[in-house]
Amino acid sequence: MSNVAIGIDVGGTKALALMVARDGRVVGEMKSQTPHDEGFDAGEATAKVLVDQIYELCERQSLDPSQVPIGVGLPGMMRRDGHLAFAPNLQTASGADLGAQLGDALANSSVFCENDANCAALAEHEWGAGRGISDFVMVTLGTGIGGGVVADGQLVRGRSGFAGEIGHMVIDAHGAPCLCGGHGCWERYASGGGLHRLTREAALEGRLATLVEQCAGDPRAVRAEDVTAAAAEGLDEAVALMREVGWWLALGLSNLVAILDCGHFVIGGGLSEASDLVLPAAREYLAELVEGYDARPTITVTTSMFGARSGAMGATLVAFERA
Amino acid sequence: MSNVAIGIDVGGTKALALMVARDGRVVGEMKSQTPHDEGFDAGEATAKVLVDQIYELCERQSLDPSQVPIGVGLPGMMRRDGHLAFAPNLQTASGADLGAQLGDALANSSVFCENDANCAALAEHEWGAGRGISDFVMVTLGTGIGGGVVADGQLVRGRSGFAGEIGHMVIDAHGAPCLCGGHGCWERYASGGGLHRLTREAALEGRLATLVEQCAGDPRAVRAEDVTAAAAEGLDEAVALMREVGWWLALGLSNLVAILDCGHFVIGGGLSEASDLVLPAAREYLAELVEGYDARPTITVTTSMFGARSGAMGATLVAFERA
Repeated sequence: MSNVAIGIDVGGTKALALMVARDGRVVGEMKSQTPHDEGFDAGEATAKVLVDQIYELCERQSLDPSQVPIGVGLPGMMRRDGHLAFAPNLQTASGADLGAQLGDALANSSVFCENDANCAALAEHEWGAGRGISDFVMVTLGTGIGGGVVADGQLVRGRSGFAGEIGHMVIDAHGAPCLCGGHGCWERYASGGGLHRLTREAALEGRLATLVEQCAGDPRAVRAEDVTAAAAEGLDEAVALMREVGWWLALGLSNLVAILDCGHFVIGGGLSEASDLVLPAAREYLAELVEGYDARPTITVTTSMFGARSGAMGATLVAFERA
Repeated sequence: MSNVAIGIDVGGTKALALMVARDGRVVGEMKSQTPHDEGFDAGEATAKVLVDQIYELCERQSLDPSQVPIGVGLPGMMRRDGHLAFAPNLQTASGADLGAQLGDALANSSVFCENDANCAALAEHEWGAGRGISDFVMVTLGTGIGGGVVADGQLVRGRSGFAGEIGHMVIDAHGAPCLCGGHGCWERYASGGGLHRLTREAALEGRLATLVEQCAGDPRAVRAEDVTAAAAEGLDEAVALMREVGWWLALGLSNLVAILDCGHFVIGGGLSEASDLVLPAAREYLAELVEGYDARPTITVTTSMFGARSGAMGATLVAFERA
């Protein structure tokens, strides 16, 4: 039984690999670019990047790459058998069995794949902001929204392993179109991508007059980053837009409370870096939006303990558990 | 250990009590009116009705009412300790501990309360349309929408026991107001109450011209029952409205698929009697609305096996399990 495992969180642009001990201590780290979308290659280019990372991390500790359990977190619908069934944000590898490819390349029989947000949920549950909490949802606010649902202390995986696709919960039936083909998905409102879209909308509607002025009067030039920066400095119109994002965030969280009666949310992903601008409003709106709010114990919303590392940390747990 | 249990499904207007054997055989049945909403009485009048039912069913079988395990399904947010925390449809008993009241009145230490749709899910899982299926959701379409979530073979109860309030999932952020205080809750669209509302809306908008004509030109006189009857006879405008209900049903089911990756839905409640007019459309729209539909195994939608009896059947399972 290995004392360390490697966990790799594969995103649309970067892959973060960590070597982690059983107690959660990080003993090695490496970040690489993932191959750009140059057409479908069944994940081959991606697998090559990961193999290089694994060799490098093992070499540093003088470990044999065929003997270290490996977990891989992937952004998409992961089948229980390890195939990436549907991955709008990693289309080169859609349908691929990355675990088998890595296993072959490394002569390693302990390679396991899992959805990235599920990995993050496992890490926060074991070591982080969800520790000791039996019913919570990990919500990763990146370009889209990923999720990992823990109910009664167990990760909910669903029939095929696809559970937790919370970003594609429709909250606005006739709302904005989504990459998935649907309309009004939650991630079009409360993610980094959602902030981008709402910024554009607000700028065009004249609700970001100061920022538009700073962009030489071009509403299309105002970026989401401009809004978060201005909100941090207290510019009213920007604060108002961040509160709007907080409202949309709270709306989706309320739905999860209704369905799952989860008492806690752990917020991760890139947008969580702007958490001071979003979460206070989200907490406030929860009181309005949750059915029977007063009949429930307090619902808590915190940021993740491991931030951008949650996915890779949790991938090592997958490796430890299944090896 | 008793060979039979009593299960009572308490609705806003009626209470159905069943005496059921361990193998699911119904050995006694009694239906009563629940007390009308004459102000809050902490559930006393309701408890009295249930006590009478229990005495009656026991007398028929010459059983001692203090010795038969009793389960009660209630329409609202049930705390794990048996208190009815929030019940918009049974306000006279909101906050009451009906289990304790029945226990005291009957000198029976085995009285257990559970949410009614959770009871229905248990019955369908054990004996009915969800038998052998590890990930499914029971959806009861009555005045509102109730739900019971089964994940990995277990009923999801949530932190306080409130899980499954799926009717209050918001699917239309700026939509129709709901009794719960929110806007755009699923049950305002895809339930019996939703059909009623959509009928009114369609009649006023001129989309039910034939039916309005049959009501002496008064759009407010067209009832939901008129629509289901006309749709059964093939009247286009009525069929179209029932398909609209099917679309809204599919939208909420798609959200549950995204979050839970459930592969099966069991539809119960009053509106399920019009299932031939709604479910075919709902199944068809699922293919459009579910993210990554083609990457998933088939999603099935069936009607409940026990119909109006599911809740009471399942309440006996609660009694058997916890006694």
